[in-house]
Amino acid sequence: MSSSVYLHDVPLGEARQRFLEALEAIGRSTAGPAELVPLAEGLGRVTAEPVWARLSSPHYHAAAMDGYALRAEATEGASDRTPVDLPVGSQALYVDTGDALPEWADSVVPIEAIEPIGAGERGSLQAIRLRAALAPWSHVRPMGEDLVASELVLPAGHTLRPVDLGVLAGSGHAEVRVRRKPRVAILPTGSELVPPGSAARPGEVVEYNSLVLAGQVQEWGGQAVRLDIVPDDPAAIRGALQGAVDAGADLVLINAGSSAGSEDLSASVIASLGTVLVHGVAVRPGHPVILGLLGSGSRAVPVIGVPGYPVSAALTGEIFVRPLLDRWLGRPPDEPEEIEAVMTRKVHSSMGDEEYLRVTVGQVGDRTIAAPLARGAGVLTSLVRADGIVRIPAGSQGLEAGQPVRVRLYRTRSEIAQTIVALGSHDLTLDLVAQFLAGRGRRLASANVGSLGGLVALRRGEAHLAGSHLLDPQSGEFNLSYVRQYLPETPVVVIGWVGREQGLIVAPGNPRNVSGLQDIASSGLRFVNRQRGAGTRLLLDYHLARLAIDPAALAGYDREEYTHLAVAAAVASGRAECGLGIRAAAEALGLGFVPLFQERYDLVIPRQHYEDPFLRPLLDLFEDPSFREAVAALPGYSLEPMGRIIAA
Amino acid sequence: MSSSVYLHDVPLGEARQRFLEALEAIGRSTAGPAELVPLAEGLGRVTAEPVWARLSSPHYHAAAMDGYALRAEATEGASDRTPVDLPVGSQALYVDTGDALPEWADSVVPIEAIEPIGAGERGSLQAIRLRAALAPWSHVRPMGEDLVASELVLPAGHTLRPVDLGVLAGSGHAEVRVRRKPRVAILPTGSELVPPGSAARPGEVVEYNSLVLAGQVQEWGGQAVRLDIVPDDPAAIRGALQGAVDAGADLVLINAGSSAGSEDLSASVIASLGTVLVHGVAVRPGHPVILGLLGSGSRAVPVIGVPGYPVSAALTGEIFVRPLLDRWLGRPPDEPEEIEAVMTRKVHSSMGDEEYLRVTVGQVGDRTIAAPLARGAGVLTSLVRADGIVRIPAGSQGLEAGQPVRVRLYRTRSEIAQTIVALGSHDLTLDLVAQFLAGRGRRLASANVGSLGGLVALRRGEAHLAGSHLLDPQSGEFNLSYVRQYLPETPVVVIGWVGREQGLIVAPGNPRNVSGLQDIASSGLRFVNRQRGAGTRLLLDYHLARLAIDPAALAGYDREEYTHLAVAAAVASGRAECGLGIRAAAEALGLGFVPLFQERYDLVIPRQHYEDPFLRPLLDLFEDPSFREAVAALPGYSLEPMGRIIAA
Repeated sequence: MSSSVYLHDVPLGEARQRFLEALEAIGRSTAGPAELVPLAEGLGRVTAEPVWARLSSPHYHAAAMDGYALRAEATEGASDRTPVDLPVGSQALYVDTGDALPEWADSVVPIEAIEPIGAGERGSLQAIRLRAALAPWSHVRPMGEDLVASELVLPAGHTLRPVDLGVLAGSGHAEVRVRRKPRVAILPTGSELVPPGSAARPGEVVEYNSLVLAGQVQEWGGQAVRLDIVPDDPAAIRGALQGAVDAGADLVLINAGSSAGSEDLSASVIASLGTVLVHGVAVRPGHPVILGLLGSGSRAVPVIGVPGYPVSAALTGEIFVRPLLDRWLGRPPDEPEEIEAVMTRKVHSSMGDEEYLRVTVGQVGDRTIAAPLARGAGVLTSLVRADGIVRIPAGSQGLEAGQPVRVRLYRTRSEIAQTIVALGSHDLTLDLVAQFLAGRGRRLASANVGSLGGLVALRRGEAHLAGSHLLDPQSGEFNLSYVRQYLPETPVVVIGWVGREQGLIVAPGNPRNVSGLQDIASSGLRFVNRQRGAGTRLLLDYHLARLAIDPAALAGYDREEYTHLAVAAAVASGRAECGLGIRAAAEALGLGFVPLFQERYDLVIPRQHYEDPFLRPLLDLFEDPSFREAVAALPGYSLEPMGRIIAA
Repeated sequence: MSSSVYLHDVPLGEARQRFLEALEAIGRSTAGPAELVPLAEGLGRVTAEPVWARLSSPHYHAAAMDGYALRAEATEGASDRTPVDLPVGSQALYVDTGDALPEWADSVVPIEAIEPIGAGERGSLQAIRLRAALAPWSHVRPMGEDLVASELVLPAGHTLRPVDLGVLAGSGHAEVRVRRKPRVAILPTGSELVPPGSAARPGEVVEYNSLVLAGQVQEWGGQAVRLDIVPDDPAAIRGALQGAVDAGADLVLINAGSSAGSEDLSASVIASLGTVLVHGVAVRPGHPVILGLLGSGSRAVPVIGVPGYPVSAALTGEIFVRPLLDRWLGRPPDEPEEIEAVMTRKVHSSMGDEEYLRVTVGQVGDRTIAAPLARGAGVLTSLVRADGIVRIPAGSQGLEAGQPVRVRLYRTRSEIAQTIVALGSHDLTLDLVAQFLAGRGRRLASANVGSLGGLVALRRGEAHLAGSHLLDPQSGEFNLSYVRQYLPETPVVVIGWVGREQGLIVAPGNPRNVSGLQDIASSGLRFVNRQRGAGTRLLLDYHLARLAIDPAALAGYDREEYTHLAVAAAVASGRAECGLGIRAAAEALGLGFVPLFQERYDLVIPRQHYEDPFLRPLLDLFEDPSFREAVAALPGYSLEPMGRIIAA
């Protein structure tokens, strides 16, 4: 049993240093063992040593044209008036492109440049006649022209691409010595975990971190082994860890459950089998990372305790696992693509931690913007939606809106350049737009900031368009007065998008017999509201005022959700008994719906973007029959306004 | 037997159009069949349909902290002076982070915020005491907070990344419907072909295009099957093509041999089995591409005749195979990364053809430069050395030196940014530098333009450094007078690099008993020279002048090679009997060597780059013992000058 050290929130640099020193001590800090693989299995592997040419290219003097090989000096003096005839066989020999020249020849005359003499059967000539002299080495690719045996073909530490395989074969190799793939065992622990696809009951959590970690390892050149889920039982965890070591793992990842006690369990089991070097690193999201060794001396195997929350787990892969794989593969550390962008919103960060903030990135006009995604360590969707990551160093209190930042990209710049940024009100059709645009060379990045938030984003030049359904209480008209108020300087086009049925989302079968807003106030039903600035919130306020209902009379008026589906989810889960939202959200979750109002949801598009061909694929959707059909299939949706210019 | 059409040099756009129309006619122009795969096998696959969440995330109200679940209203009025006690069991229940809340609870109070009352054994309390009220839904992750069942998780046509696998599992999926990998059969043909690693004899060619094509197909999401080499025999080729179709190939690539007749053979066999749509496309390198169908009607299978030269073959993959795979995978067409650069040299191009020019790209100071690589379709090394490709459209006569161009990158921008560009004289140590830098975060891009060419490149700001060994005939000193003459305005540092032994490279054993330059002139030996501007050429001219030998007396004075190894290769192959070069080149190819002179090879580095930390890893090599050892091991090399400042 080795010593165990419990430490909390070690700075990242120090944590890495401690881990590296421990790896040095056990002789595991440098490139791992090599193996010889056939070229056909070499793609993506990393060369373990420089490769030198064994064979020159070409490895003989090769005809560069179809024609006759000959000695150039035999053609001296040949001209129109003094042609030279060369007997086929002794002084001229037919060669195809690529054929080796006979020993005695030093040139090739192309077939088009000769006159045949005494053509026999099937092209065999007695002689060829030339009416021009040839320079030596005409139409010949001399041996070694391209590559001479003994030249460097590829350095060590090079990741093999398709063309490299060809050049290795061409320079005389059939196999290539590459680094063996590091074997990474991934052990999910947690009594609450169930495998993907299980009918999960409350309290059960689908185990998916091992899929993410295995995918990362695979992508970074390692070989991942996903072990079976082990419950929170020290003996079982200990057995599984030891089993992974015995099976020859180069690295073990133990993924803790989501409960706070789970990492302590991991740490104590690691300590019982070896050493805990670090427990807790000052990075967000990711705090409870464990770095340690299983066993001791030269047979020790490094182990990383990966936090249970998915965003922490993925980040732990990026900042701890990848550098280790690079090191063992003898490959230069990954230099991520970076792009300059400006923050759309202020972000606070803890002074003590190094934070990795996931952002959506888009290019709007000549500005590249970075919009922060939800920051919780458990927010699964932020993983999928992240276009990149912004590092906020320890000692910083955060980032200001408008501040320039460097974003490490998860996507290529060209994908970023194809991104249409839509901020504003949430609507279910945005999912459909994303889906249809994917096949049309554009990507949709949308964030729900409410209708007003969308107009503000347009004013700041942070979005290509905003979805809006703001009811003007004076005029009863949608959007126009708000556009005038919020975008006085920005020429915009307002286009109708969809008509939507708004109403009360209630439990299935409407057990409380709600028929309108009055009922909620009078019966004390638990209500769930939308956030300030949301069109649906304005709609509610408008009608409450008309009905002279005091908002305070609604129990839950202050509970805010950001989307229609979130309101529906609150009702479905019993957290609320009703909320205002669209019919489609109610039907998506099998809830009851009491229709109250019809509203129009418009797209507000700055003229500059409206006229840019870049937005064309989106505007084309107005006329796309299959898209229209998909929208019409959403309950409570009307296509009537779609494409109508409301204001321009 | 179908009709066959022989056409020559169809413009690329038209060729693509004809192929696409034929694919439409047989129903093969759109996304292929789908299959359901377990998530663990999903990495890199392409979604065949949009994926909607089946499970919300969280799918129940989950404790966000370790603590006690309770109803918030039970804590009303709790304060320091009026604490509230809640009995454990009926009104408070211990929960770990991630646990489901009991039906009756709506909040969690963190364990740190309670006072235990009547602690029993092992933490079971009788009651908890609170001194502050809780808001409803405190420390709870409500069901659907992150993702609501029925929301879009991923669109169709999305290539699955590690995080996507996690989110799919988290949203209730165990499998994902993806496009089946298109099956691509690759058939190498040619009687001259031998498999990689064979001891190739003159006239035999190592078959490596199938490795490159298979690697490309694999990287682009297809499944490649490399078939055995088939000789130039119509019946055998026909049998192999039919076999590939019968085995269920979605696409067949037939790779012609390098002889000019070989594509005609491919075309006639394709015609006998189906239709030749296009034979010859106006692209360089790549002309003799064939596009066709095997069979007819809905069971027809597209076939692409790939030219035999390696650069043409790789390009054919990029411009014809990849778009087809994108289409069948239902994936947006690849948008390559592009970068703006300026051409270092003028390049002529044929008006009639669309040319794809391979270039090396580097960032020198604030300029990004594109240096054209050797353009032959057979130049294997240009494949490995290419950092990107410049498209020269049909109708253009070429590119001017200094002209801005867009380069489609084969590497990431960060790799480009790590590239040290060395132009100038060829020296074998550059291979070692490339090899050693690869492990130090830098990449070396070098091109042999001769010593003078290197100085000119520095003047134009096209390189970070130049290797030079220019002997001044007046002073007998190296480099300094040339640097003054060619770089009068550019402050540079000249640093000693290596001493080299120059001499005559001759056949093994020196059968003609050459002892000096006089012998060559007098005996009429076939000589091979270096190109104008090369230091070795100047060295020769200097000594010829001293010995009063007329250059015209050297047979072959006009035959130019660009590197020491190329001179050695010319002697090794019998193309020449002797040439001036360094001992290491002679020994690399097992040739004889007659030492004549000692010379110094320096690095010329503009002060701006010399002082930039970017170049540090290269300058550090001066002191690196393992690097010095590797250089010292080169025959005829001296380390004596290494690191000595000659001029600054």
